[in-house]
Amino acid sequence: MIQIFITGGTFDKEYNYITGQLFFRDTHVPSMLERGRCSLDYDVKTLMMTDSLEMTEADRQIIAHNCLRCPYNHILITHGTDTMVKTAEYLAHANLLDKTIVLTGAMVPYAFGTSSDGFFNLGSALAFLQTLPPGVYVVMNGRYFNWNHVRKNRKTGHFEEIHN
Amino acid sequence: MIQIFITGGTFDKEYNYITGQLFFRDTHVPSMLERGRCSLDYDVKTLMMTDSLEMTEADRQIIAHNCLRCPYNHILITHGTDTMVKTAEYLAHANLLDKTIVLTGAMVPYAFGTSSDGFFNLGSALAFLQTLPPGVYVVMNGRYFNWNHVRKNRKTGHFEEIHN
Amino acid sequence: MIQIFITGGTFDKEYNYITGQLFFRDTHVPSMLERGRCSLDYDVKTLMMTDSLEMTEADRQIIAHNCLRCPYNHILITHGTDTMVKTAEYLAHANLLDKTIVLTGAMVPYAFGTSSDGFFNLGSALAFLQTLPPGVYVVMNGRYFNWNHVRKNRKTGHFEEIHN
Amino acid sequence: MIQIFITGGTFDKEYNYITGQLFFRDTHVPSMLERGRCSLDYDVKTLMMTDSLEMTEADRQIIAHNCLRCPYNHILITHGTDTMVKTAEYLAHANLLDKTIVLTGAMVPYAFGTSSDGFFNLGSALAFLQTLPPGVYVVMNGRYFNWNHVRKNRKTGHFEEIHN
Repeated sequence: MIQIFITGGTFDKEYNYITGQLFFRDTHVPSMLERGRCSLDYDVKTLMMTDSLEMTEADRQIIAHNCLRCPYNHILITHGTDTMVKTAEYLAHANLLDKTIVLTGAMVPYAFGTSSDGFFNLGSALAFLQTLPPGVYVVMNGRYFNWNHVRKNRKTGHFEEIHN
Repeated sequence: MIQIFITGGTFDKEYNYITGQLFFRDTHVPSMLERGRCSLDYDVKTLMMTDSLEMTEADRQIIAHNCLRCPYNHILITHGTDTMVKTAEYLAHANLLDKTIVLTGAMVPYAFGTSSDGFFNLGSALAFLQTLPPGVYVVMNGRYFNWNHVRKNRKTGHFEEIHN
Repeated sequence: MIQIFITGGTFDKEYNYITGQLFFRDTHVPSMLERGRCSLDYDVKTLMMTDSLEMTEADRQIIAHNCLRCPYNHILITHGTDTMVKTAEYLAHANLLDKTIVLTGAMVPYAFGTSSDGFFNLGSALAFLQTLPPGVYVVMNGRYFNWNHVRKNRKTGHFEEIHN
Repeated sequence: MIQIFITGGTFDKEYNYITGQLFFRDTHVPSMLERGRCSLDYDVKTLMMTDSLEMTEADRQIIAHNCLRCPYNHILITHGTDTMVKTAEYLAHANLLDKTIVLTGAMVPYAFGTSSDGFFNLGSALAFLQTLPPGVYVVMNGRYFNWNHVRKNRKTGHFEEIHN
């Protein structure tokens, strides 16, 4: 059984045609999993719908709390890319020992059609989730990164491996 | 380094608006990887463009031969779903000991827009390829299957685990 | 008030991922009009869902009959392109004197995403319907054609003006 | 011969995945006309790429000037919806007596996939352009409006007929 937590981010943003602004409505993840003909057992729960630049310490507590009380050992979290690494670090210190936790997101909203990477990222995140040992990971660009060896390059939009 | 071999299948089919038939032109995989902002090192080579129902023993020899002479240990093969398991079995007997080989495909052509599973499957296939031990696998429906424990259910279109 | 009659054709075809064949389910026209934020008064009625190559004399009688008994003077008919001109000719002889009747279709199914011309054709057909004098017209390729001065070029897929 | 002038607006906006802002690159109109298999003779020229809220008197002078010196009598202008009516009024006073001028736009960028009305609007704008008498018109929501009898309802996003 796979637990999927939705937290918002570009992944689930939509275009408001009245204001011309991006906003959140419902998550697209359930319809994406159906489109992907995914036959895994999964449960999707929306924890929040927030731009990750506006994510607070309290938001991260809620995410960690839900991971802790989740009865399953495989957790996928959709998240804005800007502070994805920060939340991954937060979760790595939350004593989630037996769990494999994967954070993923998108550079272009899924609702924006043929330029979005979201559907690809969802597929790779689910696959890494099933095969990686317990730990906290970021999955973007077709790759996985350990929470403490990754950063987002804000110029290219790509995630990169770093070694401290 | 990841080797990607294209063999055709629904994944890469297009609609011919003159005849109303499906046909093959070039593979979409390179543009899909770009859209997925994939930062892995990969090489894409088209071995054939064939409907898997029309795939012959000679075609499978070509696939196996290219896997054998491939200098890399991670090989992704796009393939029609109808005989994907048969080709997986063929490769399992081809003495490819050190290699992880993943076959994937699509139930709806990538070119057919918002109903295609292809982009999701490509993401999950690449992820499984990086994490599974040497062997031959089928990746569909967000899951991986060992070559000898899988069949396509032709009524539902889903791949299922079987135990002989 | 605009009457829209659905008769099938490539316009409304879908891909059956089990059989790999094209088939009909429900028409996409109502959701297309919503997407186009169309604020006209219209009524959509499905008369049949048929490939126009398989359209019979009886089918054309049904279309003509429904045009005759329609209380509105502006009628849009979605139709397969292969025999669209034939149905236009049939309607031109059906004594529909006060009515403007526009037939349109698509070369690529609307459901096939970013290569379909259907949404563009629907927009132009509705516009011509509001401005052309009574008569029977074919609307394709951004243009309108009088029913008796048009043929489909089966090599290019374009409709052409002819003069007898 | 149809002259198409591009001025920007939501129609042609794109999503910048680094900044999360909307921006302009090249116009999509030529590829849209190709997708619509449009067989009209047309010429596409980009006059500017601007958000219509930022359009100045100088911008409108450029548009009017280009309409005046255009040798063709049918001119389509893509334009942001927020000040489309204002530009229409400006052109109505620019002494373009023999010309039919249609302004159209989109509520959702064409690049944002299956929710955009742009392709539908382009089809209907081209059709109205071919059939309406000389004058300046706004085409949105499947309808045409005389320049002096239309306003954009900013709450619904729809254009409405008004009578002064």
